[in-house]
Amino acid sequence: MTYPNFKFEITHRVQSSRARLGKLYTPHGVVETPAFIFCATKAAIKGATVADMKRENTQIILSNTYHLMLQPGPEIVEKMGGLHGFMGWDGPMLTDSGGYQIFSLGHGSVAEEVKGKRNSQRPKSLLKINEEGATFKSYIDGKRHTLTPERSIQVQRGLGADIILVLDECTPFNVDKAYTERSMHMSHRWAERSLQEFRRGPEGVQALYGITQGGIYPDLRKCSADYVNSLPFFGHAVGGSLGADKAQMEEVVDMAMEPLDPSRPTHLLGIGGVSDVFYGVTHGIDTFDCVHPTRLARHGGALVQPHLLDSKGKEHMNLRNAKYRDDSRPIDDSCGCQTCMTLSRSYLHHLLKAGELLVMHALTVHNVHFMNRLLKAVREAIATDTLDQEKKKWVS
Amino acid sequence: MTYPNFKFEITHRVQSSRARLGKLYTPHGVVETPAFIFCATKAAIKGATVADMKRENTQIILSNTYHLMLQPGPEIVEKMGGLHGFMGWDGPMLTDSGGYQIFSLGHGSVAEEVKGKRNSQRPKSLLKINEEGATFKSYIDGKRHTLTPERSIQVQRGLGADIILVLDECTPFNVDKAYTERSMHMSHRWAERSLQEFRRGPEGVQALYGITQGGIYPDLRKCSADYVNSLPFFGHAVGGSLGADKAQMEEVVDMAMEPLDPSRPTHLLGIGGVSDVFYGVTHGIDTFDCVHPTRLARHGGALVQPHLLDSKGKEHMNLRNAKYRDDSRPIDDSCGCQTCMTLSRSYLHHLLKAGELLVMHALTVHNVHFMNRLLKAVREAIATDTLDQEKKKWVS
Repeated sequence: MTYPNFKFEITHRVQSSRARLGKLYTPHGVVETPAFIFCATKAAIKGATVADMKRENTQIILSNTYHLMLQPGPEIVEKMGGLHGFMGWDGPMLTDSGGYQIFSLGHGSVAEEVKGKRNSQRPKSLLKINEEGATFKSYIDGKRHTLTPERSIQVQRGLGADIILVLDECTPFNVDKAYTERSMHMSHRWAERSLQEFRRGPEGVQALYGITQGGIYPDLRKCSADYVNSLPFFGHAVGGSLGADKAQMEEVVDMAMEPLDPSRPTHLLGIGGVSDVFYGVTHGIDTFDCVHPTRLARHGGALVQPHLLDSKGKEHMNLRNAKYRDDSRPIDDSCGCQTCMTLSRSYLHHLLKAGELLVMHALTVHNVHFMNRLLKAVREAIATDTLDQEKKKWVS
Repeated sequence: MTYPNFKFEITHRVQSSRARLGKLYTPHGVVETPAFIFCATKAAIKGATVADMKRENTQIILSNTYHLMLQPGPEIVEKMGGLHGFMGWDGPMLTDSGGYQIFSLGHGSVAEEVKGKRNSQRPKSLLKINEEGATFKSYIDGKRHTLTPERSIQVQRGLGADIILVLDECTPFNVDKAYTERSMHMSHRWAERSLQEFRRGPEGVQALYGITQGGIYPDLRKCSADYVNSLPFFGHAVGGSLGADKAQMEEVVDMAMEPLDPSRPTHLLGIGGVSDVFYGVTHGIDTFDCVHPTRLARHGGALVQPHLLDSKGKEHMNLRNAKYRDDSRPIDDSCGCQTCMTLSRSYLHHLLKAGELLVMHALTVHNVHFMNRLLKAVREAIATDTLDQEKKKWVS
């Protein structure tokens, strides 16, 4: 199986790790990897326009199939020219399969940053999982829906993102190895059904990613990697439980990546803190997504390099802090985002205190720019094999 | 008393009414009048950046002294370079005196569009009005504040808008003639105290507007106009109660404007529906302000010309309406705003249903563009003395 109009080109590798530079060609443009994918969950970046996203150097965004299949429905999006036409975004896009929200959230809310924290129990809206698929209640009107691997692909065909994902079961964090293994095999069968459904669609319009499973178990990670490697996916995503904390997460990413076919672009699902980006690229991750930068912005947090912070271990400035009340400096005077070019910490602090909408926009714009700047710095550091030195500027 | 760096030039008059074209020169640029002034109440346009405002052809914005004196306080704003520096807006600005919110709202909420509807009782936060000024409780922390004519000018000096207003008592709508007359005379004495305080400040930085009072009583309107005409204000604002409904409002504006010195720029406080603009300019109004366009946007309403609406008498499209669900057209295909250039009614409907922040931005941008386009059309119609014909395109 081929993917006309798509190509993944690895342009540079380093000796010291699996880090690499790439070019991911899609019908809507080329993504320089490693890259960050911003979440436009319901076909909108919360707090920024697509023009803002472009201006702040965004390469690629994603939307969530779960939310859009319920509202407005894939037929509407398709009629409006797919997500690209609907949103007015002309760059590359990705959609997920919808599975993650059904299995782990169920209420249309956003994911926790660290996967281990979120999967402790099933949502009440999840009614049934079996070989056929998953049945759940809509968070909007309570109606029953069944999402099968085939249906997920059909919906994603309607949405029209460049990169689409197979449906997998997202297991809760606390399941044992036996459950993880059974679930992995079912996800593998779902992946084949997804692929079969995908083949029925037009060629060269979308590219399908498989998802590697296996939880925190090295042998299952190996087994799952061998399986997805053997199927003609264009790329891979690292899915399944990544463990309980950041340390375990890095371990699991390592064991997941080691056996994966390195010629395919690989996405790390739902992870995108600053330190995560550094260990991710070191293990060969090409793309990241996370709601964190845009969600943090809506709560008054601005992502900054550690030299701008008093306390260690933090990755953002809380502009609600009273010390910014009369601070005339921008968030970061080395930042070229629209917010830092025009607004002071004092003004942003005032907007937060006053409950003004505008501050969500201002901080979203900054955090988007920050992530794009971070990934650009990471790409430059890979080019010169100086990732360790670069990391010191971004992580305390 | 002179106003260096300020000038009001009447460039064209029509025969059929008091409508005129003007150029209002300020230290931050020239305003072509008639013009609409958008409300950045707490030093922020709700839902739009200053870059958005510029792009959509905005000439001038205002902020509210009442809100800003409580949060963040005029000292902070002054330290950050005044409102212009604080907000990053480099065009002309106006501030009100703070009186309106104290006398009529008290809770930091926004004004009703039609003045007659809103002034039926005093807010609980207003503790005392006497010759000295008004004492009220802060809506933020309950602290007592006294606003005197002198204090209002001092605060507005700190805020640094180009055009500032004298403190006046805003009488409730339901007061009788005796109260209106007593209040008018007190407001006149306050106006003189405001002027005296204003003279103590630097010349050529700000221009002071007097406010004409007199409620719905022709003899009081005449008396107040004579009074403000006699004092060296740079411009005037039409204040006080304008009556119970739109018909009476036009009558009152007529009786207020007739005796006012026509050589001074004149502002109509808090009024700015589409039909209001037409009768306002006919009676010689040069500038309008109203929260309506931006507030309406936050509730899903897009200002449009009547030919785009099914029902008569309305001035906006409610994009929550299910009929827009699969409507691929922009709000108005003759509109050049960023929203109409890029987004469909269907998408805006989806964003409203999904509760996405972005829609407030999209509709604010449209409504700002609409008002600026309306005022431009009005100016062109005055130039050719075709206001009546033009009105038919905008008011059903």
